[in-house]
Parts: sequence; C-alpha cells; structure tokens
Amino acid sequence: MSDFDLEKHLCVRKSLIDEALNKLLPTEDEPPKRLHQAMRYVALNGGKRLRPTLLLDACYAVGGDEKLALPAACAIELIHTYSLVHDDMPCLDNDDLRRGRPTCHRVFGEAIALLCGDALLTLAFEVLAGEQVKVGVPVNVAIEVTRVIAEAAGHFGMVGGQVDDIEAQRQLANGEMLQEQQLYEIHRRKTGALIAASVEVGAIIGGASEKQRAALRKFGEELGLAFQVTDDLLDAVNPFRMKRCEPNIVAVLGIDGARRVASKAIERALMHLSQFDERSEPLRAIAKSILERRE
Amino acid sequence: MSDFDLEKHLCVRKSLIDEALNKLLPTEDEPPKRLHQAMRYVALNGGKRLRPTLLLDACYAVGGDEKLALPAACAIELIHTYSLVHDDMPCLDNDDLRRGRPTCHRVFGEAIALLCGDALLTLAFEVLAGEQVKVGVPVNVAIEVTRVIAEAAGHFGMVGGQVDDIEAQRQLANGEMLQEQQLYEIHRRKTGALIAASVEVGAIIGGASEKQRAALRKFGEELGLAFQVTDDLLDAVNPFRMKRCEPNIVAVLGIDGARRVASKAIERALMHLSQFDERSEPLRAIAKSILERRE
Repeated sequence: MSDFDLEKHLCVRKSLIDEALNKLLPTEDEPPKRLHQAMRYVALNGGKRLRPTLLLDACYAVGGDEKLALPAACAIELIHTYSLVHDDMPCLDNDDLRRGRPTCHRVFGEAIALLCGDALLTLAFEVLAGEQVKVGVPVNVAIEVTRVIAEAAGHFGMVGGQVDDIEAQRQLANGEMLQEQQLYEIHRRKTGALIAASVEVGAIIGGASEKQRAALRKFGEELGLAFQVTDDLLDAVNPFRMKRCEPNIVAVLGIDGARRVASKAIERALMHLSQFDERSEPLRAIAKSILERRE
Repeated sequence: MSDFDLEKHLCVRKSLIDEALNKLLPTEDEPPKRLHQAMRYVALNGGKRLRPTLLLDACYAVGGDEKLALPAACAIELIHTYSLVHDDMPCLDNDDLRRGRPTCHRVFGEAIALLCGDALLTLAFEVLAGEQVKVGVPVNVAIEVTRVIAEAAGHFGMVGGQVDDIEAQRQLANGEMLQEQQLYEIHRRKTGALIAASVEVGAIIGGASEKQRAALRKFGEELGLAFQVTDDLLDAVNPFRMKRCEPNIVAVLGIDGARRVASKAIERALMHLSQFDERSEPLRAIAKSILERRE
C-alpha cells in the first residue's frame, strides 16, 4: 500500500472526530450557556486531532471495529483540549493566542476558562463511562480504557509533566542547564503519556492480544518522543514560537542532534509495527510524517 | 436504635476515609514532589468527609459490603477537594484560608494549585476505574458508578453550578435581586449534585433495587438542599463568613423562611427513608443533624 493517501486519511478522520465531538458537547442554548459556549469554542477549534486519529488507527491496525473506538477518541481529544485551556492561563503560560484565535481566558475570562477546563476533563470521563457502553464496548474493556486514560492524564502522566515543566522553567530562569535525561522525562510525561495511551487504548478496544497491545504501546511512546522533539525543533527555528525559558531539547543537542533523536525514535516506532499487517499502514504513514512536520 | 451515637459514627467513618485517602494519594518523596505535596496538603486537611460518609452509609443502608464502596467514597472526596482548590483561586473566590489553613495557591502558588486540582480530579477517575475493580466491585457496577459521578461533577452538575454562581454574583454586583427558584437551581447543581450522587452511588454499589436507588437518590437531593440552606444560614448570621455579593437564600426568604425550607427538606428526606430498615439509622441521624449545624 505505497499509494496510501495520508492527507486524505487525516482529513476523513478529522471530520469524523469533529462531528462526534460536536454531538457530545453540550449545545450553546442549554444553561449554563457561557460555560457551554466556552467548551465548544475550545473543543471545536480546528485542531489536527492527532491523538484521536492515532487511537482509531490503532484500533484499525488490530482489526477492531472503529465505531467502538470513537467515544474514547473523543475523550482523549477533550482531555488534550482541557490541558491546553489550563496551560494557556495567566498563571501558567499566559498565552493570548491558540491556533490563531484568542485563548479561552482572553475571550471568556479566567474564571470561565478554569471551569471550562474542569468541565471538559469531567466530560471526557462521562463519555468514557457512558458513551462507550452505549455504543457497545464491553464493560470490562470500557473500564480498562478509562483507567489507562486516567493514569496517562494524571499526576504521574500529563499533569505531572506540566509540573516538571514549571520546575524546568524555574531552573532555566536561574541560569541552570537542563540535562538531556531530564528533558526526555518531561516530554515522556507531558506529551508522551497521552499519545502512548491513545495508541494503547485503540489497541485495547480493537481486541489486541497482549503482545500486540505492548507493541502498539511502545510504538506510541516512540511516536510521542519524536513528536515532542520535532515540536522543539519547530520552536527552535521559528522566532515566533520560541519562548524564553522553556525547556527545549535543541538547546542541549543542537538542531542536528535533535533531528537524529527524532528520526531514531521513528525508526524504533516502525520496528514495533513489524508484526502487523497492511492495516497498520495509517500508523506507519503518520509516524513517517512526523519527521516532515511543518506546524 | 434511638441510642445511635452519631458523633462516634462520624469519627469512625472519618478515620476510615482518611486512612484510605492517605494510601491512595501519591507519597511526597515521589516526583513530581511539589505536586504530590500539594495534593496531600489539600486532601488530608481535616475535612468532615460528609460526602464519602453518606456514600458508605447508603451502601450500608441497603445491606451492601462497605469495603467495596470505599474507593468510590475516596473518589467523591477527591472531587470535592479539587473543587475547593479551584474555587479558592484568585480568579474565582480568591480565598486565603480554608479550614483555618492557607489555601493551596497561597502555599504552592497558582500554577501548582491549578494543576493540583486537575490531578485530584483525574486521580478520582483513576480510583473509580482502577481501585474499584481491584477491590472486587463488578465491572458493570464500577462503570455505572463512574458515569453517575462524572455526570454529577460536570457541566450540568457541580461545575455548571459554579458557573451559575459566578453569573449570580455578577447580578448581585449590578444590584439585581435573585429569584428563589434561581437560588435553588444554583444550590441543586453546585452542592446538591455531588451529595445526591454520593448517596446514589453508595446504593448502587450496595446492590440496591431500582426502587431503593431512586428513594436514596431523592433522599440525597433533599439532604443536599438542606445542607446548602443551612450553609447560607451560617453565612448569614456570622459576619466572618458572610461575603458581599454571594448568592444567599436568606436574602430572599429571611432567617425564619430559610430555616423552614431546610426543615421541610429534611422532613421529605426522612420520608424517602421510610422503606428502609434500621440500617438506615446512620443516614437518618445525619439528616437530622443537618438542622443543628454549627459549622
């Protein structure tokens, strides 16, 4: 399947996910309206939907029914979205723009932004515990999926990584250097955990064997690393993206060194797919495309 | 069982819940340490543990195994705790003290407080999807419990009520009067939803029949109303608690009117317990004690 059309694939996935999110989010004419407006403003914002796409593609790779994976895919995107809303707030990154639009707190105020993030995170778990069962995911699978996602999003995972990031920013502001391993650890938690969970959860819902699940999990971990390193590379070469005092692997390894780390990670990621048949082509294509990222 | 010792009962419940929370929370010597310190600081803070106690008591009332209800009880308390951490933040209530101690953001800074709340909410769902299954709650029960709690905590429940509250504060600041029904609606969501869910979830885990579950849910709703009205009464008579521009039912009904509403709600709550045997005594005793609240 060398003629696999990744661009078309991502577009089809994106519209499937956008449509499902649109249905799961509360409408703006139900109270509390301002909260629901904020939730829709941030969740339906033209994101690339990488995490839910990986989730659906992992489910497909093991021959699973993608319809069953759609609620979990939406839940992952809701969690990713909430983390951006809270990250953008003045007490964290204090960002005014997100994907070219004013951030949630700039439009709705800090109080609503805080509560909007809380509501999106909670909705993710409502979807995991409610919608999954409704569409026919077996309850033992639904609860395991919920556990894996909660673990990845929590204090040892994504939220933990955000705290590591704050600590690293403090070190940089004090003129300290970060170590390569420390940067990997931040990335592993802050970005990697949710990406790896996306792939693993797709595998679980798709009915993967233990061996398949473990391989896809490792694929996800390597992909998450490559994704973050290429993000750092984009930040490093773009003066509009680069922020003072943000941990960046390029500062430690240089541009070529960082490129090598990303391409090695993708190599290992593809190796973990060796046991899968042609249905793993979407995952392969996404992995390769990470190295060509332009945004 | 007119000789039921409520004080002793609450004390036993509190130490059971405190001990379980202590075990579920990450230790302070694991990284990210500052996050884990903050989580423990706010979650192990000498709270009365009303919600988890109600959950365990509802399980007991239907003859269930309370050991199975302990993870959900902890999850409810973690959610209650996160909501206090975020509520106290400068962009919401901007409180310096909580139960006589400096609030989370005063001790750890706003960034960590925000992430600490996020981590506690996520941990609640990790406990619901992980610990519940581990202690032997059947997966169909565990997933239903997770769904009910997520719904109660989310945009139509607790978080929605917090947004209603912001809107009401804005109205009051503009010199507008609040209507009695609007205040009930805020209370129902902001405080009532999680209290009602606590009781309902205890019933579900305890193996309640549909009829028992519905009755206990209604008991919880009435109790939640009475709890919030007595909270308003305490605020109204205590100059240290009363805050300008906070919605308070006493402003609409007067002290006697508010007392009548609380005592009517408790009357109805007790009526919903009529089908239960003497194992509902703890719930009865708690309901009656709400009217005597001094803190």
